[in-house]
Amino acid sequence: MSILVVGSVALDSIETPFGKREEILGGSATFFSISASFFDKVNIIATVGEDFPKKYLRLLKERRIGTGGIAVNRGKTFRWEGRYEHDMNVAHTLATHLNVFQDFAPKIPHSLRDSKILFLANIDPDLQDSVLRQVNRPKLIACDSMNHWITSKKRSLEKFLHKVDIFLLNDAEARQFSGEANLMKAAKAIVSKGPKSVVIKKGEHGVIYYSKSGHFVAPAYPLENVYDPTGAGDTFAGGVIGYLSKAGRINDTAIRKSMIYGSIMASFAVEDFSVNRLLGKKMSDINKRYSDFKKLTRF
Amino acid sequence: MSILVVGSVALDSIETPFGKREEILGGSATFFSISASFFDKVNIIATVGEDFPKKYLRLLKERRIGTGGIAVNRGKTFRWEGRYEHDMNVAHTLATHLNVFQDFAPKIPHSLRDSKILFLANIDPDLQDSVLRQVNRPKLIACDSMNHWITSKKRSLEKFLHKVDIFLLNDAEARQFSGEANLMKAAKAIVSKGPKSVVIKKGEHGVIYYSKSGHFVAPAYPLENVYDPTGAGDTFAGGVIGYLSKAGRINDTAIRKSMIYGSIMASFAVEDFSVNRLLGKKMSDINKRYSDFKKLTRF
Repeated sequence: MSILVVGSVALDSIETPFGKREEILGGSATFFSISASFFDKVNIIATVGEDFPKKYLRLLKERRIGTGGIAVNRGKTFRWEGRYEHDMNVAHTLATHLNVFQDFAPKIPHSLRDSKILFLANIDPDLQDSVLRQVNRPKLIACDSMNHWITSKKRSLEKFLHKVDIFLLNDAEARQFSGEANLMKAAKAIVSKGPKSVVIKKGEHGVIYYSKSGHFVAPAYPLENVYDPTGAGDTFAGGVIGYLSKAGRINDTAIRKSMIYGSIMASFAVEDFSVNRLLGKKMSDINKRYSDFKKLTRF
Repeated sequence: MSILVVGSVALDSIETPFGKREEILGGSATFFSISASFFDKVNIIATVGEDFPKKYLRLLKERRIGTGGIAVNRGKTFRWEGRYEHDMNVAHTLATHLNVFQDFAPKIPHSLRDSKILFLANIDPDLQDSVLRQVNRPKLIACDSMNHWITSKKRSLEKFLHKVDIFLLNDAEARQFSGEANLMKAAKAIVSKGPKSVVIKKGEHGVIYYSKSGHFVAPAYPLENVYDPTGAGDTFAGGVIGYLSKAGRINDTAIRKSMIYGSIMASFAVEDFSVNRLLGKKMSDINKRYSDFKKLTRF
């Protein structure tokens, strides 16, 4: 199938206990698309400024990611500065410069309106909805969100979620959105509000998939070396959606496998800054870790 | 096989967001033995005061737990008072009255010195070692510990751990003991210090088993209703050791299954105060949840 992702392409400056990097490639659509590109064809809709390094566009093209939908607008590229302490589960935002991303109004070109799978990364739910109104009903609609929209645009988000098949969010956001401390209660409450299913990403603690017809839980792939967790959630989503697209069917078996592939992709992503580690991987590395995961968890 | 557990039998007063209970049955040996009693014969070595309610002793006997090693000493029974907020992973200790437990000096009767499996619950590592010196080398030696001993008796603990097959501790303790924030690094570091294997209990986030020859990771059984997490770790250990005893062999397959049985037993324990929920269960309930767990996690 073909995947369309709408989200951010950004420049990140990041500090972790293991080092510091300035203006490295980041953004939800970036992590998602590179991850998904291991499985199937992906096209990006995003905006960058005139200062966006050409080498990063080349890097996306080399992975055969469709970059025609990345508009280069007057101004500067979205920048995020963050720091992680020893507890890598918590990102401390030092600065957010939205720049051209502030005026992001995604326009879907005719050629991409028949994309079979749509992933709406973490953007204003009104924009997520505007994208949905531009495309012909995809076979699968998935989206992410964040604390900011849950606080400021809850009504829009809730309305929009009725159209969504898979809603991905992290554990803190799931608790915030549902008002439930217990994650199984949170998952149940979220699904009762509209989306067909919810995926709660728990970082190093794994994932919960919850729909009215079935549940799935998995630990994360255990890692000794986590250098930079930035983008792990979008990389996870890229593995999930990429695998589902390649599988060509969305049933219980495919969903379960997709969650493991998502975890595997995220486990690679966090082993280096930006997308560095992902770029060095081959499908054989991914399948090797998938098989390791199976051995690690079977009983 | 036959299991011997050395630990505490206590009276707990507990407050959670779901209610408050005074002087209910608690203690590491209590939770462990009731959990293990579903699988095999268990004998307890512990001490209680003259005030220890007869009904609690009867309750243990009704589960065919050997209580002959519970010494009734002059004075009061060990009491613990704790509170849990909405984040049930953190216990806030309000008061600890060691009472007769302060002078606990476990004596193993001749009749129990040939026990095939020994579980040394969380007591002073010097006492754990003194028990080991009283018994004839069991087939399996497992133990727990806690932050207090890691701080005050680290050298004794490290020395003792060389004799241990399975060292169980929680994630915070594993980080403290190893000085490693990353749990896989922590597990590796702990095993390098002596025990043949380590089990890191992550509460609602599951478990990591680590030995030089193999690793296993599992999520926790997902629950919607957690009323009181007290004793979950010892109940987990009881399921692990109970299953291994019943299986009669300690290999990779049995270890993996034992971790799941441990998780299942702990999942029941936390669904009510004290051992209330455990007592109402039958082996068929346990096997039903085991089979649910398999369905929830297979991919």
